[in-house]
Amino acid sequence: MGNTFGTIFRLTTWGESHGGALGAVVDGCPAGLALSEADLQPDLDRRRPGQSNIVTQRKESDAVKIVSGVFEGLTLGTPIAMTIANEDMKPGDYREVESKYRPSHADYTYDAKYGRRDWRGGGRSSARETAGRVAAGAIAKKLLRDREHVEVVAWVSKIGRLVADGDVEKVTLADVEKNIVRCPDDAIAAQMIEAVEAARKDGNSLGGIVTCAVRGVPAGWGEPVFDRIEADLAKAMLSLPATKGFEIGSGFGGTDLTGAEHNDAFYMDGDRIRTRTNRSGGVQGGITNGETIYFRVAFKPTATILKEQETVTRDHQATTIKGRGRHDPCVLPRAVPIVEAMAALVLADHSLRHRARRSSP
Amino acid sequence: MGNTFGTIFRLTTWGESHGGALGAVVDGCPAGLALSEADLQPDLDRRRPGQSNIVTQRKESDAVKIVSGVFEGLTLGTPIAMTIANEDMKPGDYREVESKYRPSHADYTYDAKYGRRDWRGGGRSSARETAGRVAAGAIAKKLLRDREHVEVVAWVSKIGRLVADGDVEKVTLADVEKNIVRCPDDAIAAQMIEAVEAARKDGNSLGGIVTCAVRGVPAGWGEPVFDRIEADLAKAMLSLPATKGFEIGSGFGGTDLTGAEHNDAFYMDGDRIRTRTNRSGGVQGGITNGETIYFRVAFKPTATILKEQETVTRDHQATTIKGRGRHDPCVLPRAVPIVEAMAALVLADHSLRHRARRSSP
Amino acid sequence: MGNTFGTIFRLTTWGESHGGALGAVVDGCPAGLALSEADLQPDLDRRRPGQSNIVTQRKESDAVKIVSGVFEGLTLGTPIAMTIANEDMKPGDYREVESKYRPSHADYTYDAKYGRRDWRGGGRSSARETAGRVAAGAIAKKLLRDREHVEVVAWVSKIGRLVADGDVEKVTLADVEKNIVRCPDDAIAAQMIEAVEAARKDGNSLGGIVTCAVRGVPAGWGEPVFDRIEADLAKAMLSLPATKGFEIGSGFGGTDLTGAEHNDAFYMDGDRIRTRTNRSGGVQGGITNGETIYFRVAFKPTATILKEQETVTRDHQATTIKGRGRHDPCVLPRAVPIVEAMAALVLADHSLRHRARRSSP
Amino acid sequence: MGNTFGTIFRLTTWGESHGGALGAVVDGCPAGLALSEADLQPDLDRRRPGQSNIVTQRKESDAVKIVSGVFEGLTLGTPIAMTIANEDMKPGDYREVESKYRPSHADYTYDAKYGRRDWRGGGRSSARETAGRVAAGAIAKKLLRDREHVEVVAWVSKIGRLVADGDVEKVTLADVEKNIVRCPDDAIAAQMIEAVEAARKDGNSLGGIVTCAVRGVPAGWGEPVFDRIEADLAKAMLSLPATKGFEIGSGFGGTDLTGAEHNDAFYMDGDRIRTRTNRSGGVQGGITNGETIYFRVAFKPTATILKEQETVTRDHQATTIKGRGRHDPCVLPRAVPIVEAMAALVLADHSLRHRARRSSP
Repeated sequence: MGNTFGTIFRLTTWGESHGGALGAVVDGCPAGLALSEADLQPDLDRRRPGQSNIVTQRKESDAVKIVSGVFEGLTLGTPIAMTIANEDMKPGDYREVESKYRPSHADYTYDAKYGRRDWRGGGRSSARETAGRVAAGAIAKKLLRDREHVEVVAWVSKIGRLVADGDVEKVTLADVEKNIVRCPDDAIAAQMIEAVEAARKDGNSLGGIVTCAVRGVPAGWGEPVFDRIEADLAKAMLSLPATKGFEIGSGFGGTDLTGAEHNDAFYMDGDRIRTRTNRSGGVQGGITNGETIYFRVAFKPTATILKEQETVTRDHQATTIKGRGRHDPCVLPRAVPIVEAMAALVLADHSLRHRARRSSP
Repeated sequence: MGNTFGTIFRLTTWGESHGGALGAVVDGCPAGLALSEADLQPDLDRRRPGQSNIVTQRKESDAVKIVSGVFEGLTLGTPIAMTIANEDMKPGDYREVESKYRPSHADYTYDAKYGRRDWRGGGRSSARETAGRVAAGAIAKKLLRDREHVEVVAWVSKIGRLVADGDVEKVTLADVEKNIVRCPDDAIAAQMIEAVEAARKDGNSLGGIVTCAVRGVPAGWGEPVFDRIEADLAKAMLSLPATKGFEIGSGFGGTDLTGAEHNDAFYMDGDRIRTRTNRSGGVQGGITNGETIYFRVAFKPTATILKEQETVTRDHQATTIKGRGRHDPCVLPRAVPIVEAMAALVLADHSLRHRARRSSP
Repeated sequence: MGNTFGTIFRLTTWGESHGGALGAVVDGCPAGLALSEADLQPDLDRRRPGQSNIVTQRKESDAVKIVSGVFEGLTLGTPIAMTIANEDMKPGDYREVESKYRPSHADYTYDAKYGRRDWRGGGRSSARETAGRVAAGAIAKKLLRDREHVEVVAWVSKIGRLVADGDVEKVTLADVEKNIVRCPDDAIAAQMIEAVEAARKDGNSLGGIVTCAVRGVPAGWGEPVFDRIEADLAKAMLSLPATKGFEIGSGFGGTDLTGAEHNDAFYMDGDRIRTRTNRSGGVQGGITNGETIYFRVAFKPTATILKEQETVTRDHQATTIKGRGRHDPCVLPRAVPIVEAMAALVLADHSLRHRARRSSP
Repeated sequence: MGNTFGTIFRLTTWGESHGGALGAVVDGCPAGLALSEADLQPDLDRRRPGQSNIVTQRKESDAVKIVSGVFEGLTLGTPIAMTIANEDMKPGDYREVESKYRPSHADYTYDAKYGRRDWRGGGRSSARETAGRVAAGAIAKKLLRDREHVEVVAWVSKIGRLVADGDVEKVTLADVEKNIVRCPDDAIAAQMIEAVEAARKDGNSLGGIVTCAVRGVPAGWGEPVFDRIEADLAKAMLSLPATKGFEIGSGFGGTDLTGAEHNDAFYMDGDRIRTRTNRSGGVQGGITNGETIYFRVAFKPTATILKEQETVTRDHQATTIKGRGRHDPCVLPRAVPIVEAMAALVLADHSLRHRARRSSP
């Protein structure tokens, strides 16, 4: 009962890495939205393994099929089911994992929780599960774009110790897609690519940070006191594999400032209320204030490394394990569309929740 | 519909800062738990205004009353309703706020969302709302302690630029309660107190970080893929007023490491599977692994400052505003029991959700 | 976790019959609705014990207090908490019930579920719990009336073997309130009153049926496939104490007809699509069609009777028990506002859910 | 957001009658349950069109595939996704329906709600949607049988005016499957079959009642005050297409009795508390009492009839329509496994919810 996300615009995902298929069901999408696989595939392609030489070389076309909820090119208002095939499965690569727990993976905890697990490719704990989220997120993005004029853009702002924060008001999808590491700063991007390649050669891995901006959200979205926009974004991001942190607006760095330095003064910009600065990150009291929402998500270095590590077996014997097979030396480039997807899901849900609130007097 | 938190162990809060009262309803607490107001009041007292000279001087006894769900000293399994009076209300202090938006407060966004707001003391957006959370959290803590042998301890680890991280395995409630700023490092605590007092004299405010440790959780709690323990903790923390960030385990700092440096090796400690290090923060794949869960929460500097600031009126006129009346120059000391409460609510809920999973074969 | 009802317009109730108080929290009511206790009390008075000589003589003023969510006479959009005192408690009347299970009451099942119960007045299983529902339902009714022009009217259509179905298009609140039994047919009402009085003298009890009409609902409310209007109404009604059946439109009687006899032909009434007959009861495929919604709810005869009955003790000893103290010889007259309240809660929730659906293109 | 059912054991269905496929996702099924398609197919076959000459002749194999959540023959604790193909689609049969509203179908209300609909075969409003429910229900049944020793059996007890109530304590699956109409009384069954055949020849249709018994449920399941067992069963049944009524235990007929006649006396049966009669239908105060749960569900006569009927077009023109193509002259025989499925889903969910309650002291 933890595989559904959202309140009105709701996503349910299913599927194991080496199982029959992967899928997602979106319930609550309004009727009449123009939608086809062509709207979803680009984001799937951005998430796809094998898309460049700095990501895992598993060969998956990740072609998404819409099997319900769309008729004559428009959504019906009924559940939209989507499936994605598993094509390039190599269960043999994971035989050792059947009996040994990979450090900082979920092998042990899944066994502890469920008493068993599908050890092939990590089963349900594989980041492959996020394919369904990206498909659903593409629907949410389209809803936000077409009906609310809201835009969601994410990019890599840190890999290892290389930092390249972009301008949250300006970075575009085109800026992000200029290079395979999805960092809008080309100079840093080149260094990042080098670093990832070096890590791979070394059988090692790197972590980093994705920054995400959501622009064009009107003032008023968010449902205090628990379902604040930032609370739902934080949950969305920490529900992603490998994430260890979330910060919005000034974040952890803002704790260095005093109130006088931190507060966002209001002013009139024509007839629109704006803030001079945006340390709040577009949210005050859990409700959007019309400024750009921006946040950062920390991803740990990939747990799979091609180095011998101490571990134990299912039978409680000390042993060692060394990663093999295909893996991402750094998940950041592929994490970008995933972060966008989760952000879009949160915002789409809140756009509808807010609408429900506005019963006319 | 955003005022309920949790799935099985569920909390609903209600009440405005200067309204009739504040309250909380806990639904889903198992029957037979010994419970009285005496179990709740200590945490209320730790959150209470006026408890020391570094917090707001609003005079509230914050005496909590249990009005349902407990009979002859034991929970009934029915909803536990609790109320807390508002005693020391000074609506006059807020008259100016009726027409002017305080920077980095929720005045504007509440108006934008609801078309109106209770401007007295911030109404529903006041941190006073967290009194109900603390009362409910005390029940969750008791359930965790009595039935699961789980302990939740939080403390102040940063105020302004003063840092004092404690040992997540060792800090006790007694360590935390040694001083009024709730920092277990006495030397730093003294500096923090001084800094808060200086900020107050200056009409300014400070932010900081609360660290929280949850010890004794068995392996297996957490509900992937969306309701991971860390996802629910992140949501819980970002649902608190003034929070801007959450990180678990190695957090943002972990992005500096390589996989080889970051992974937590498994080993056998007697017949128990343990990890050599705990960069995972007690959670792998969204499920607890039996190690201590620890995380950090960033609180921005209090928005209320006694300095003149640029702002606008409800009627879209440029103006200025200067805070007056009572306020916290730094929320960190009072935030400690609130963070503990939210953590306990998440863990109590997941303890019950996990139990539901274990239908016997 | 079973004490909350609804999706967007949500009700949580709490309280035991002889506990500290009873209460309800409504979350999700739109802001700006004019509301005061005066809007709620009339329905509380219709549900109140002691209102006439055919109901229980427990003396409760059932004065409802709104303690949050309303400011300057208008809802804030925040949770509306309401409390109702327990005044005339006679726990001594229930001493015997502490150790003996009353037939067809919930004494045994509460013990079986929770291991314990508040035996005073039935505790949480008492129909006294519905006071909170009626208060919340009055808010829902007001929202429906003021914003959607929807009217909810219920009445007693059967007591024992006395039947008096009213015209679902025409019966008004005034018709219902003409007599103490709340049956719009005065002649039958007089017989019903006599029958209830006779039952009381005999220490016996009667059951019956409440019919409810909801008029003015536009076409389009309802959320298939599970949250159909009739599904949510059925759940609402069967969640009431003493209910054993629900039927909508033609109901059980409709199973006697053929499709040719049962189908509701469509026709144009000016520019509005109408049906010639309304065997569907205002709902087709789980969605309202603009015709009057009407349904019937069966209430069993009150379980408390002043006659000796076979039963067992908590300690598994055979024994007998004879009801004593105050009780309703027939719950039907008091059930009328309760049925209306639950119907209004369902419809108010669906009005908001439908609104959320309608994101503009 | 109305396509998910249940709290812990949760079902989401998707799919249109003539769309890409139909499917269901079950989240929350405990790990370690032996499960394969062979466990599901028998119930699918009982619901399948074309299974006998008294049901619709659409040719569907309705072969169900499990595509996730099961590994090496056992459930993983992760979502179980299932798909069923649409094979024998004849959209051409429905061309007329594109522009005309069929009386007592959902064509008009879907248009009113969503602004559009998939008119081919009724789209999402088709009873074909219940195939996913039956697949999920078969999992719930298996969980109940294997882990709780609970049995769910339903049968046809009325068609048109032909009545044949069975003994709720004794009717077995074998009794039900003896004849194609699924009525355990062979003599009445023969008349029912004749009546359905006559209706079909006449282009007409019949309704009826399904009775369902759930045996072996221990005392203690159910979550008052809103999520009573009978409330959730009522919702489950009224969420099915064509249902108009639900009654449990004595139901509507019980309103004829006095309390003295209706109450179920308790007695000791060895060391087990039992009731002499079972007018309560196995539930008291919303919680099971250990007796057999039994209830009845009213299905209206099929709306599709091959007779000319008055109706209107999408463009508000008066017209007539006459059903054509394949249809069920009576849905009752196929409704039996569907009612069982929904009952099993409710009980499985409550078995897990109850388990969550029982945190050990």
